[in-house]
Amino acid sequence: MGVSGRILVVNPNSSEPVTAAIEAAVAPLRIAGGPEIAVDRLRSGPPGIATQRDADSVVLPLCDLVARDPSDAFVLACFSDPGLHAVREAAGGRPVMGIAEWGLLRALTLGESFGIVALSPASVKRQARYVRQMGLGARYSGSWPVDASAEDTAGDAVRGRLVEAGRRLAAERGADVIVLGCAGMAGHRRAVEDAVGRPVVEPTQWAVAAALGALRLAAC
Amino acid sequence: MGVSGRILVVNPNSSEPVTAAIEAAVAPLRIAGGPEIAVDRLRSGPPGIATQRDADSVVLPLCDLVARDPSDAFVLACFSDPGLHAVREAAGGRPVMGIAEWGLLRALTLGESFGIVALSPASVKRQARYVRQMGLGARYSGSWPVDASAEDTAGDAVRGRLVEAGRRLAAERGADVIVLGCAGMAGHRRAVEDAVGRPVVEPTQWAVAAALGALRLAAC
Amino acid sequence: MGVSGRILVVNPNSSEPVTAAIEAAVAPLRIAGGPEIAVDRLRSGPPGIATQRDADSVVLPLCDLVARDPSDAFVLACFSDPGLHAVREAAGGRPVMGIAEWGLLRALTLGESFGIVALSPASVKRQARYVRQMGLGARYSGSWPVDASAEDTAGDAVRGRLVEAGRRLAAERGADVIVLGCAGMAGHRRAVEDAVGRPVVEPTQWAVAAALGALRLAAC
Amino acid sequence: MGVSGRILVVNPNSSEPVTAAIEAAVAPLRIAGGPEIAVDRLRSGPPGIATQRDADSVVLPLCDLVARDPSDAFVLACFSDPGLHAVREAAGGRPVMGIAEWGLLRALTLGESFGIVALSPASVKRQARYVRQMGLGARYSGSWPVDASAEDTAGDAVRGRLVEAGRRLAAERGADVIVLGCAGMAGHRRAVEDAVGRPVVEPTQWAVAAALGALRLAAC
Amino acid sequence: MGVSGRILVVNPNSSEPVTAAIEAAVAPLRIAGGPEIAVDRLRSGPPGIATQRDADSVVLPLCDLVARDPSDAFVLACFSDPGLHAVREAAGGRPVMGIAEWGLLRALTLGESFGIVALSPASVKRQARYVRQMGLGARYSGSWPVDASAEDTAGDAVRGRLVEAGRRLAAERGADVIVLGCAGMAGHRRAVEDAVGRPVVEPTQWAVAAALGALRLAAC
Amino acid sequence: MGVSGRILVVNPNSSEPVTAAIEAAVAPLRIAGGPEIAVDRLRSGPPGIATQRDADSVVLPLCDLVARDPSDAFVLACFSDPGLHAVREAAGGRPVMGIAEWGLLRALTLGESFGIVALSPASVKRQARYVRQMGLGARYSGSWPVDASAEDTAGDAVRGRLVEAGRRLAAERGADVIVLGCAGMAGHRRAVEDAVGRPVVEPTQWAVAAALGALRLAAC
Repeated sequence: MGVSGRILVVNPNSSEPVTAAIEAAVAPLRIAGGPEIAVDRLRSGPPGIATQRDADSVVLPLCDLVARDPSDAFVLACFSDPGLHAVREAAGGRPVMGIAEWGLLRALTLGESFGIVALSPASVKRQARYVRQMGLGARYSGSWPVDASAEDTAGDAVRGRLVEAGRRLAAERGADVIVLGCAGMAGHRRAVEDAVGRPVVEPTQWAVAAALGALRLAAC
Repeated sequence: MGVSGRILVVNPNSSEPVTAAIEAAVAPLRIAGGPEIAVDRLRSGPPGIATQRDADSVVLPLCDLVARDPSDAFVLACFSDPGLHAVREAAGGRPVMGIAEWGLLRALTLGESFGIVALSPASVKRQARYVRQMGLGARYSGSWPVDASAEDTAGDAVRGRLVEAGRRLAAERGADVIVLGCAGMAGHRRAVEDAVGRPVVEPTQWAVAAALGALRLAAC
Repeated sequence: MGVSGRILVVNPNSSEPVTAAIEAAVAPLRIAGGPEIAVDRLRSGPPGIATQRDADSVVLPLCDLVARDPSDAFVLACFSDPGLHAVREAAGGRPVMGIAEWGLLRALTLGESFGIVALSPASVKRQARYVRQMGLGARYSGSWPVDASAEDTAGDAVRGRLVEAGRRLAAERGADVIVLGCAGMAGHRRAVEDAVGRPVVEPTQWAVAAALGALRLAAC
Repeated sequence: MGVSGRILVVNPNSSEPVTAAIEAAVAPLRIAGGPEIAVDRLRSGPPGIATQRDADSVVLPLCDLVARDPSDAFVLACFSDPGLHAVREAAGGRPVMGIAEWGLLRALTLGESFGIVALSPASVKRQARYVRQMGLGARYSGSWPVDASAEDTAGDAVRGRLVEAGRRLAAERGADVIVLGCAGMAGHRRAVEDAVGRPVVEPTQWAVAAALGALRLAAC
Repeated sequence: MGVSGRILVVNPNSSEPVTAAIEAAVAPLRIAGGPEIAVDRLRSGPPGIATQRDADSVVLPLCDLVARDPSDAFVLACFSDPGLHAVREAAGGRPVMGIAEWGLLRALTLGESFGIVALSPASVKRQARYVRQMGLGARYSGSWPVDASAEDTAGDAVRGRLVEAGRRLAAERGADVIVLGCAGMAGHRRAVEDAVGRPVVEPTQWAVAAALGALRLAAC
Repeated sequence: MGVSGRILVVNPNSSEPVTAAIEAAVAPLRIAGGPEIAVDRLRSGPPGIATQRDADSVVLPLCDLVARDPSDAFVLACFSDPGLHAVREAAGGRPVMGIAEWGLLRALTLGESFGIVALSPASVKRQARYVRQMGLGARYSGSWPVDASAEDTAGDAVRGRLVEAGRRLAAERGADVIVLGCAGMAGHRRAVEDAVGRPVVEPTQWAVAAALGALRLAAC
C-alpha cells in the first residue's frame, strides 16, 4: 500500500560490518503492514567517519544519493549526522532523520542527563559542538572515548571498553542515560545496559522509528 | 504476536469530543501486524485541563489506571504531561510517553525555534515552566493563547484563532515550527500548517509513534 | 494587629519528628510584634515524600487545606515544593512559599554554585528537573544522595552522611554553598556548615522569612 | 535584645528625595521586637548612579562605611548593586544584601519571566550584564528605559512613564512580573501594579526583608 | 622576515565583486613590517553560498586548497564558516580563522546583544544553529534577512535594505551591535553604522586581525 | 603615520615583575609601521589584585589615567578586567580591551571547552561570575587555583603549579584549552602548553592583538 512506503537507511561509511550491525538493529521495526526498511552503505564513503573531513566528505554523495533515490524517507546512520540539513534540501520534502538527533531526543525521555560513548577524542569534540547546536547542553553529562574505529565497534573485542565508558559516564559524570555514539555499536546495546544499569539508547533504531512515524503521518 | 502489543492512549480529561479528535489523529499509526492502539478518556477527569489543579488532580487516577491496565505502553494525551514521572513509576518499566514531551522533541527536528499554540494565559505559564524543565529554552520562541477550553478546540469555530496564533508566533516571535498545545486541536493540524506556511506538529501522533517504536524495540 | 497576621507552615508529610525539626528551625523567626508562625503536618500525608507519587499525592490535600485555612500566608515545607502552583491558585492571592524555591534563591546570594544534599537517587532526579524548571542550572553543581528517609534525617544517626555529602559536593562538584534538601535535616545545619566549611542553607527558614516579608509588605 | 540587631540601609547616592522614598518603602518592615532599620545616604555619593563610573565610584566609600559601622546587617539600596562583593569582604561576615539581587529573586517567585523598569539605555546594558552574571537569563524578558534620573523617579511626574514601561514589558516582551529598577521608584509600586495588572516588585523592600531574616537566623 | 609570513583570505564563492569587497575591507590591515595579506576566491565555488549544499560543497575544495597552499595562516571569508573544523585538520597546525566566528566574538566586546544582517531566511536558520553551536545564544538578538544574494550585497542597490535590517534588529530585537552576515556586505559597514547608530562589525576584518595576531604570536 | 597610533597596556597593579612579564609577552606584536605598544603599571595600584576590593580600587585611577592619556587604544592587563565598562566611558570612543575578555574569546577558537588557571579560590569565584556575565558558561570547564600572588606567578617557582593546574583542568574537568588567569603568568605559556598538551592562551597578547586590529580598522 502506498501509505506504507519505503525507508532507506544509509550508512555513510562503506564498512560492511557496520552495515550489518545496522541491519540487525533495525529489523524489529519491520512490521507486516508497515514501510519497507532497506539498509545500504555509501559505497564511495570512507571505511569509517573518524575525522571532520570524513564527515564532510560524504555530504555531497549523500545529497546525490537521496536526490535520485525513490524512497519515501531516509535515515543517515552515522552519529555525526553528516550533511543532515543539506540532505533535507535534496530530499524535496521527504523526511530525513539523523541518528544523533534522534538518539539524543530519545535519551531525553529516559533520564535527566545523558552521556555519549564516543569513538575518539575527536568525536568527543564533534559531539560537544553538536549537542550545543541542538540546544541540549542542559541535559548533557559529556562523552567518553573508547579509542576505536567504527568498524572496531561492530566486533566483540570492543564490548568491554563500551561498558567501561558507560560506567565512567554514570559514575563520574552523573549520566543516567547512555547513548551509543556510533551506529556500529548497535549490537552491544543490551550488554552495555545490563552491565551499566542505566538505559542505553541505540540511535539508529530511534531514527528509523521516527521515519516510520513520519511516513504514516505524512498524509494527515 | 506478543511483540506487537497494545498501546493505551489516555485522554486525562473526560471530554468526548477531545477523545474523538485524538482517536482520529492516531488512526494512521495502526499498522497490520503492529501494536493495537486503544484510545480512552479518564472518566473521572475534569472536562478539560485548565488550571494547575486540574492537571494535578488527574495524576493519582492516571497512576491507578496504568497500574491495573494490562497494556504494554501508555500515552498521556494532555499537553500538560500531567503526572508523567509518577505514572512512569506506576508502569513498572512499561513505556509511558507524554504528548508535550514528544511534540516538542519532534518540533526540534523540523526547524530552529518552535512556538506553541496555547489554550490560555495560564497554559502559557505552564508551558514556559515545562520547556525550561525539559532544558529546551534555547529553541523556544514562546506560546500564544487562543482563550479556549480543550473541548472548544475540538470544534470548528476555533480554527481561525489557531491560525492567527500560529501566524503571530511565526511573524512576531520568529517560530519556524508550530506545536499544537492541546490534544483537542488535532483535527486542525493540516489547516493551520497550510495557512501559516510552517510545519505544524500534532503532539499525540508523535507520542504514539514513539510508543510504537518503544514496543517494537523492547525485546532487543 | 492585623498587619502581623499568621503564617502556616505545612509539613506535607505526616512525620512527627520531621515536624518537630521544622518547628525548631523556624522558632527564631517569631518576633514579638510580627506574624504568628504555626507549624503543622498534613495528617493524611505519607510518612515521607520518597517517590514522585508521594509528592503528587499531597497536592490536592494541600490545596484543600489552604483553601479552608484562614492563615494569611503559607509555607510548603517539603523540598519537592509539591503542588506549589496549584496551591497558589487555591490561596486566592495569599502568599504561598516553597522551601526548595527559597532555599535555592537564598543559596544564590551566598556563593557562585550550590549543591543539594538529597535523600535518594530519585530525589536527585527531581531536583535536577526542578533546578532546570526554575532556570537556575547555571548555578547548580549537583545533588548528592544520602540514602535516607525524611524521618531518618530528623535523627542523629544521619549526621555523618550529611556531612559527607556536603564535603563531596564541595570537593568533587565545586559547590561553594550547600542546601539541605529535606525539611527534616534542619537540625543539622550548623554542624554540617562547621564540618564542611561552606555556608549551609536550611530552606524552611528562608521560606518563612520570605512569607514574613510578604505579609508585612502586602498592604503597601 | 542582641538578636534583634540593626540593619543599615545605605542609599549609595546622596539624593534626599531618593532616600526619603527608601525610608517610606522599608517602614512596614519595622516590627516590635525586631531589628532596628536605619536608612542613610552616602553623603559623598553622586546625586544618582547614572554611569558605570558613578556605580564604581561608590564602592570604596561603601566598603569603608561598612567596615567602620557597627550595624549587624547592610542593604545596598542602588539597583546596580555597586560593590556588592567588595562590601561583603569588608563586612567581616555580617550580611550584605543587594537590592537588584533580591528584587530579581523575589520576582522569580511571582511569575515566569520578569522585566525591569530602567532609568536609561545605559542602565539597560548594566542590567543585561547583571542578569547574566546572576545566571537568570532564562527568566528575563528585558528592561525598558524611562529616561529619568534616580531623583526624577522619586517625584510624581515620572509615574506615567513607569506605567508605560511596565505595560510595554508586559505586552511586547511577555513579562509577567515587573521589577522597579531604581530605589527611587519605590513610591510608585502600587500604582504601577494597579495600572499594569502584573505583580510589581519594589526591590529595597525585599533586600531588607532578607536582611531581617538573616539577622534572626544568624544564631542558629 | 619569516615571522611576518603570509595570510591567505579565501572567498569560498567565486564571485569577483564579493572578492573585491573583501580585498578593500582587509587593506587597512596591511602593515609595512607585518604579514602579507593575499585575497583569493575559490574558483570552483558557487557564485554565492545560498543553500546548505552550497556551504557544504566548498568544504573539500577548501581543505585541498589549504593543504597545498604554503601560506602561514588562512581566513575563510564566508559567513557560514564552511568547513572550519575540517580545514583546521588540513592546515596542519597553521591558524585557520572563520569570519562568522570572529565577527561574533568582536561583537561581544561592543555591546550586550548582537544582531546579524542575513542574506535570506535560509541564512537566518544557519546562523541560529551556528550561534548555538558556539554557545553564544545568551548574547544573540536574532538575524534579519535582506533577501539578497552574496553578489547583490557587494553592490550599491542593497544598502537601503541593510540599513533597514540593522534598524529592525536594534528597534524590535534590542540588538546594540550589528554584525554584517556576508563578506560581500563589507563596503557598507560605515554607512550602516552611521544610519543605525549602533556599532557595526565587518567580520572579515576581524578574522584577518586575528590571523595577524596568531602569526605574530606563533613563535612565543 | 597617524593610522598606526599608540596602544597603552596598563598593568593595574604596581608590580614590576608582572609588568616585565607583560612587556615580554607583547613584544612580538610590535611591527614596523604598526602601532607603538607601550606598557606601564598603575603606580598607585596594589601589588596584586587579590581581593574584590583590590579589583574595585583601581577603577577610578584607571579611568583618570585613560581620560588624560593621549594614547589611541588601551589594554587593561589584569584578568579581573577591572573597570572595563567605566574605562570605556572615560576613553571617549577609543578602544579599550580587557585581557580576560579577549583571552576567553581567543580560547573559544581553539577548542570546545576552556579552563582557567586562577591565582586563588577568590579568583575562581570572580571568574565564575565573569564567565556568566559574558554569557560563555556553555564553554567553561572551570578554574583551578594555584594559591599564588600575581607577583609570584612572574617567577619561576610557580611553574610546576601552573602545569599541575592545567593538567587537572584537562583531566578532571575536560578542558581542551587552558587560559592563563593572570597577566603575570605570561612567561610560562609555552612551558605549560608543552607539558599539558593542550593549547594555552596568554590573554594580554590577544587583547593587544585586538587593540592593534581596532586601531587599523578605526578609519574605515
